[in-house]
Formats: sequence, C-alpha cells, structure tokens
Amino acid sequence: MIQTLVVRQFSKMLGNLTEFLNDAEKYAGEKKFDVAVLLHARLAPDQFDLIQQIRIACDTAKLGAARLAGTEKDAPVHADTETTLAEIKARIESTVAYLHGFTAQSFAGAAERRITQPRWNGKSLSGEEFLVQHVIPNFYFHVTTAYAILRHNGVPVGKKNYLGAMPYRDAA
Amino acid sequence: MIQTLVVRQFSKMLGNLTEFLNDAEKYAGEKKFDVAVLLHARLAPDQFDLIQQIRIACDTAKLGAARLAGTEKDAPVHADTETTLAEIKARIESTVAYLHGFTAQSFAGAAERRITQPRWNGKSLSGEEFLVQHVIPNFYFHVTTAYAILRHNGVPVGKKNYLGAMPYRDAA
Repeated sequence: MIQTLVVRQFSKMLGNLTEFLNDAEKYAGEKKFDVAVLLHARLAPDQFDLIQQIRIACDTAKLGAARLAGTEKDAPVHADTETTLAEIKARIESTVAYLHGFTAQSFAGAAERRITQPRWNGKSLSGEEFLVQHVIPNFYFHVTTAYAILRHNGVPVGKKNYLGAMPYRDAA
Repeated sequence: MIQTLVVRQFSKMLGNLTEFLNDAEKYAGEKKFDVAVLLHARLAPDQFDLIQQIRIACDTAKLGAARLAGTEKDAPVHADTETTLAEIKARIESTVAYLHGFTAQSFAGAAERRITQPRWNGKSLSGEEFLVQHVIPNFYFHVTTAYAILRHNGVPVGKKNYLGAMPYRDAA
C-alpha cells in the first residue's frame, strides 16, 4: 500500500495542485493583476507563502518516498529558487517524474526500516511511523494550505478540485 | 495498516485539534474577546466556518472507519447542532471514543470491499481507493483548514502542534 499512498496518490494531488495554479493564473488574468501576488500570498505574516508551501509539499513527497525506499542519497536536489509560475510548475512536474521511478518493490521492507533525518538529532522512526505520522500529514498540510491561500484570495477553487477525479465504478 | 491510518492516526490528529481549540480559548481570554468569534471564523465568505470544519473532520473519520469496516448502519449519529467550544470538544471526544472500538480485525477485507455513499448516485469505490483518495485527503483537508483559520486569526498554533508528538527512538 505504500506505493499507492506515496507515489500514486501524491502524484495525483500534485497534479491537482498544478490545476489550482492554472486557476490562479486565469483569475489573475481576468482581474488584471500579476499572478506573482498570489505566489507570495500567505495566511499569516509569519507563515510561508504559496510558493514555499508548494516547494515543501514537493519535498515532502520526494524525500518521503526516497527515505522509505532507502535511496535518499540519490534523490535530486532542488535549489528552492523558483520565482515564477512556470518555475514552480516545473518543480511539481519534476517531483512527479521522480515519484514515478518507484515501484511497489522499491518499498519492500520500508515499514520496518529505521528512518532518520538531520533535524531529529540522531533519533529515528520506523518506516510505518514516518509514513503515517509524518509524511502523510505533512504533505496534506502543505497542499491544503496552498489551496487555502488561493481560496482566501478569491480564486475559484473548490473541494472537488482538491480531491480530483475518483475511479468510480457502477455499483453491481 | 488501515487501523493505524484511520483509528490510531486520526485519533491522534483529533487530539491535536482539541489542543488547537484550547489554544484558541486561551488566546480569546488574553485578548478579551468571545471564543465564539473564532468558532465562526472562515477563510472565505463561501467556505465553512471553524466549527463546521471540525464537524466534517469528525464525520470523515467516523464514517470512513464505519464504511471500511462495513458497519455504517451502527455508526452514531451526530446532529451538527454544536455551538459552544465545550460542545465541539465533546463531539471530537465522542468521535475518538467511537474510533477506539475498531480493531485491526474490524478491517479484514476492507481494501477489497465495494464502498458507496448516497451522493455517489449508485457508483462505488474499492475500500483502498476510498481510503487513499477520499478519506485521508478529506480528513487532513478539514483538520488543516481548521488550523489555518486559527493561524490566520492570530492564534499561536504551529506546525509541531499540528503533527503532535512523534514516537522517536534513539538511533542504534
């Protein structure tokens, strides 16, 4: 289930995030203001702006998958220098392409792997704890906050855009 | 892993949400305004207010678990009539108590179960699709939006409060 949660679902949500950005661009065009205003909008003066929320969502997905698979050293480095809509959309695209390199087999043994990161000062979580209590809530936090920044600023995004398409089947 | 994702982790997040509400109460006391102002705050005029975000987070957890376990008919009904801080905290507490009635065994076969709900007009998702693409993103959406409403209004909540305590171990 790890590949489904982290690769397939995070890729889907990152695609939805790209759609929010397209909605933001359209809205800025209609209202005749620079879309960069939205990219630097925030919900509180000491909270990250939209572009930084997107960078962290991308890195949570990228490093979440890499640490669970034990391949963190091979993960691509992103310089966090994006300033335009095109650049942040490219960051999302690059993250999705990277996620697609993982298969179900990449995560064999991941739930039991001990996982650490520099800011934890030598402490660690099991892979399952890291996935459930850290990666998933962090990822949705930053995607939802990006959505909330746009929603608060009048961009016509809705809950259906956030969830994206569902693979419904006709009930038997 | 379904019990871990839906029972243990959602209960933890609902506990964190109660802590945000305690922070909101303290902040309102310090600033000498009625905490009900925060309970009815929202990020956009046509988005749900804080109290409704919390109700939906609770119901996403409750009905997510119940539908996955195939026991939706037995799920307690909440009337959505809370208006005070004490009442919405009791709603959270009641939801957590309900979640704790599920065991790992409750979700045997849940990933393959066909799941539907009235608004889907007879269509269905597999349990795994429902969990990964519907329950989890919806739950974190409403918890994060509740957090964002408080953060936007100056309540001193931070990312650590959102994630809650981590079961760190000293690395070997």
